[in-house]
Amino acid sequence: MSVYTQVSQSEAADWLRHFSVGRLVALEPIKAGIENTNYFVTTTQGRYVLTLFERLPAAELPFYLDLMAHLARHGIPCPAPLADLTDRYLRELNGKPAVLVTRLPGKSIEQPGAAECAELGMVLGRMHLAGRSYSAYLELPRGPKWWRMAAEDLQRFLSGDTEELLKSELRFQSAQRFPDLPRGPVHGDLFRDNTLFDRGHISGIFDFYFAGVDCLLYDVAVCANDWCLADPKADARLDDERSRALLEGYATVRPFEAIERGAWSAMLRAAALRFWLSRLHDLHLPRSGMLVHAHDPEHFRKVLETRIRERSAWPA
Amino acid sequence: MSVYTQVSQSEAADWLRHFSVGRLVALEPIKAGIENTNYFVTTTQGRYVLTLFERLPAAELPFYLDLMAHLARHGIPCPAPLADLTDRYLRELNGKPAVLVTRLPGKSIEQPGAAECAELGMVLGRMHLAGRSYSAYLELPRGPKWWRMAAEDLQRFLSGDTEELLKSELRFQSAQRFPDLPRGPVHGDLFRDNTLFDRGHISGIFDFYFAGVDCLLYDVAVCANDWCLADPKADARLDDERSRALLEGYATVRPFEAIERGAWSAMLRAAALRFWLSRLHDLHLPRSGMLVHAHDPEHFRKVLETRIRERSAWPA
Repeated sequence: MSVYTQVSQSEAADWLRHFSVGRLVALEPIKAGIENTNYFVTTTQGRYVLTLFERLPAAELPFYLDLMAHLARHGIPCPAPLADLTDRYLRELNGKPAVLVTRLPGKSIEQPGAAECAELGMVLGRMHLAGRSYSAYLELPRGPKWWRMAAEDLQRFLSGDTEELLKSELRFQSAQRFPDLPRGPVHGDLFRDNTLFDRGHISGIFDFYFAGVDCLLYDVAVCANDWCLADPKADARLDDERSRALLEGYATVRPFEAIERGAWSAMLRAAALRFWLSRLHDLHLPRSGMLVHAHDPEHFRKVLETRIRERSAWPA
Repeated sequence: MSVYTQVSQSEAADWLRHFSVGRLVALEPIKAGIENTNYFVTTTQGRYVLTLFERLPAAELPFYLDLMAHLARHGIPCPAPLADLTDRYLRELNGKPAVLVTRLPGKSIEQPGAAECAELGMVLGRMHLAGRSYSAYLELPRGPKWWRMAAEDLQRFLSGDTEELLKSELRFQSAQRFPDLPRGPVHGDLFRDNTLFDRGHISGIFDFYFAGVDCLLYDVAVCANDWCLADPKADARLDDERSRALLEGYATVRPFEAIERGAWSAMLRAAALRFWLSRLHDLHLPRSGMLVHAHDPEHFRKVLETRIRERSAWPA
């Protein structure tokens, strides 16, 4: 579904000659993902993922690739970009900027338990600590500035309850000010399907192409809204045991500050709002050439409404 | 044998808190190696090697570590150093500069065949190509300058045939001038026991602490003198099939220049001389605190004498 740009065996083999990763053995398109074109690449040396960037602004790519390289050399299990013989990560392929990154082992899990949520918390905490020495800056691409733009774009498609909920939540969020929350590079999209497990441990976190600098707590809230739902299909309330495991796991690596505990409820709502908005946007304003079906926005509307009702206090 | 500096579980666990690699699970001293103290380290995240530098000049360490990092991010299967939370590779442990690097899978092989020699040639060629964009400089620590120093130190221990052979080979080598041979970072010590294989492919090359900038062909000669002997215990002649496989494998990645073919015989002699000299030096002038038995120098004397007799021409 997500191969926008075809790459043939011989095109890949030629492109790989500019790297030091051995000869091409196999090339296989990857169906998942909606933003880029991805292929699994096997060479005589190892297993990699080839990504062709379809629409990310070229100026932002170094932020993502250097962040992944930075985190990988700090021991975070994320894809590490491979440098070519001219010592660059980006090299054009079939007219698109493209990168080769290491392929990580493991499988994503659909129904995480408390142990997996604790493990996620620990790896996320380690990622945030390791990210603090990363000096490049990119504003979170789907942050508050984008929410307002997206809401304006969507105005003509929405009405009634939906319009009301969106307006009221944007009002609520704009009254929240968190200048003192710890900040740094955040993944911003660390859903279950962007995480790989191998024998109970996280062996990979990937898809950093929504990353940016923001409140670290926001990353935790994005995870809670995906990993800790009582029943992802039917009940958007936070499961107490898994939420607690996520937060406690994280805190063993980076203890939360009091101000973060106070911001938890608003941050969960912000994280729900962001995905509700982007799914509404993909539904009503699909980008041209978009080959995949948009996710149903209703799920994140329900998550948002549930968070508003819950006023999720920090688990005591 | 080679643990000069003891590290306890709790010392290692404390030291690891400055990294983002998870919590210590196991610590195990490594017996091989003669220059540094090494431990296998297992954490909740992965498997690593901890190296404490016992005698390498501190000023040279960044050259080695940055080279390994450079090669690793080009896809060469070498240990990648882990950066700590202050973004540095070197962090003191029990009074010594120390580094944590990734641990590579695989096993070294004692009796390589032609296929393994071809594989070695290809990986060596790839390493040399990848090294060309590495900009730091360190003169090869056991290069011609060191030969002359070592020969002077050894003068009072040698006599007769041995003294004669050494003097004559130094004279021969000093008459060789290779200003036009391709140069770059070389490993300088890529013996069978510094190479790991996994399912027929090289999964690791390590111990870069004799690396430096020199003729690339020198690295090939060091390999030939260890990997391609007709019988490592009894016959120091080069096995034709394996030498050819090494050179042909290498040339599929980086074709040799005519001038390199012409320098092959002298380079094989230089590579033999270097190890004969360092083993003589370790035998007669052991460094204080050296806990291991020196290798017998006679083996490399035989290799050198054989290379002189063979006048090893480039395999046609």
